[in-house]
Amino acid sequence: MIIIGEKINGTRKKVGEAILARDADFIRDLARKQVEAGANYLDVNAGTTPSREPEDMVWLVNQVHEATPDTPICLDSPNPLALAAGLEVVKSFNPAKIMVNSLSGEAKRVEGVLPLAVKYQTELIVLALDDQGIPETVEGRLVIVRRLVEMCRKQGLPDENLYIDPLVMTISTNTGAGLVTLDTLRAIKSEFPKVHMTCGHSNISFGMPLRSILNQAFMALTIDAGLDSAISDPENRDLKAMALAAETLLGRDRHCLKFNRAFRAGLIGPATK
Amino acid sequence: MIIIGEKINGTRKKVGEAILARDADFIRDLARKQVEAGANYLDVNAGTTPSREPEDMVWLVNQVHEATPDTPICLDSPNPLALAAGLEVVKSFNPAKIMVNSLSGEAKRVEGVLPLAVKYQTELIVLALDDQGIPETVEGRLVIVRRLVEMCRKQGLPDENLYIDPLVMTISTNTGAGLVTLDTLRAIKSEFPKVHMTCGHSNISFGMPLRSILNQAFMALTIDAGLDSAISDPENRDLKAMALAAETLLGRDRHCLKFNRAFRAGLIGPATK
Repeated sequence: MIIIGEKINGTRKKVGEAILARDADFIRDLARKQVEAGANYLDVNAGTTPSREPEDMVWLVNQVHEATPDTPICLDSPNPLALAAGLEVVKSFNPAKIMVNSLSGEAKRVEGVLPLAVKYQTELIVLALDDQGIPETVEGRLVIVRRLVEMCRKQGLPDENLYIDPLVMTISTNTGAGLVTLDTLRAIKSEFPKVHMTCGHSNISFGMPLRSILNQAFMALTIDAGLDSAISDPENRDLKAMALAAETLLGRDRHCLKFNRAFRAGLIGPATK
Repeated sequence: MIIIGEKINGTRKKVGEAILARDADFIRDLARKQVEAGANYLDVNAGTTPSREPEDMVWLVNQVHEATPDTPICLDSPNPLALAAGLEVVKSFNPAKIMVNSLSGEAKRVEGVLPLAVKYQTELIVLALDDQGIPETVEGRLVIVRRLVEMCRKQGLPDENLYIDPLVMTISTNTGAGLVTLDTLRAIKSEFPKVHMTCGHSNISFGMPLRSILNQAFMALTIDAGLDSAISDPENRDLKAMALAAETLLGRDRHCLKFNRAFRAGLIGPATK
């Protein structure tokens, strides 16, 4: 499971305040704690107004790099100017990988985000939506994914660089919403075996009771459907444990090594502090 | 999820003592608590020596029927004499259903258990093992299941009466053990769409840390593979919650009604007492 740590996001109140106040300690601490908890990438989203977002993004990636220099950054913005500014700085760190969040079928993203991903040869999160919104059906989402994968291939981004997000809607208003995501994952894996697949799990339970249990169950089910990455809070021990457990049970963890190591490292199971 | 409550089993120390002491209150309490927690059937296993087992079984089913007259009993024994004695008594209650646990490919079970299941037209748990033990491969288990389903059909037990148990071995000694069970479930469902499928989940984690998490993940994965029943402790709130969550996410719970009802009834989620 490739965990993209989601916590450095300016739309979260405390993070937004820290960005405006240039509170470097707060941001660096957020970065370190996520990596200690097992994040493989750190998503960085300034979430500020477009005019100041490029500057905020540059400040943010500098803080994150200082705190956790070995962890790849995932630049997260719909704003090509913020992405371009961030990419130039991140590139100067000579990282093993850079990720961008996200391309979609929306014309503005295709025009603004894709050329940057190609120029910097980044990894790229690809959302199954377009200017008409999120299709309700599996086939509707596949049509968009096919078009975007084809576009990426033509422009020189290999399938291995893509993290397809089938998108997750809540079951509270549509009992079939979980199945649509799961079936989309299975179809993508079958049609594009080399792409990665990622999603955020918590939307599935919006408006429901016992959200944590539903999110955990959905983690196991999405992994069964081929998911190999999650945009999540790496400090959520229950969700992480469920991911490792599912991978182990599906025979993807030789001799249960990862599961046992995570347990011994105190990353899953009852918290000790 | 059809829950077969597993707790009235004489091989558990306290239950065994209660049977020998004819402690009716203890047994009746075990029956009531399981049904209150959501058990759809109650497994009844005397677990005593063969010579006294028929008498113990009769006493047990009488206690269980007194305590929970509306819940079908699952007579659990390898001993045809105990089953025959129990069946005769249970039949006198005119129950909607009777279940027997279990038939397997072992010659003694085929000779001793199957005729009783046919005579009383019971539901029947069918284990994927024979006199050579539990096959390691999916195909090995399927060969046994095919033979037994065919045998049941010929003798007049319809597929709807069968609860096939693909059997669960621990992943601690064989990382592929989970996949064998899951793939066996999928194959059975595809070949015999009308049978039920059941299993006990806890064997999967024997010898592992964080067994509860592994058992919960395996619950979600087995349901995804088609399982519709579990032989389990209905008072295990976490396992039950995971089962309901998985069924809801897989679109098998219209308008999330069962999940929401179980939550409001206090059957899942944080315990209130």
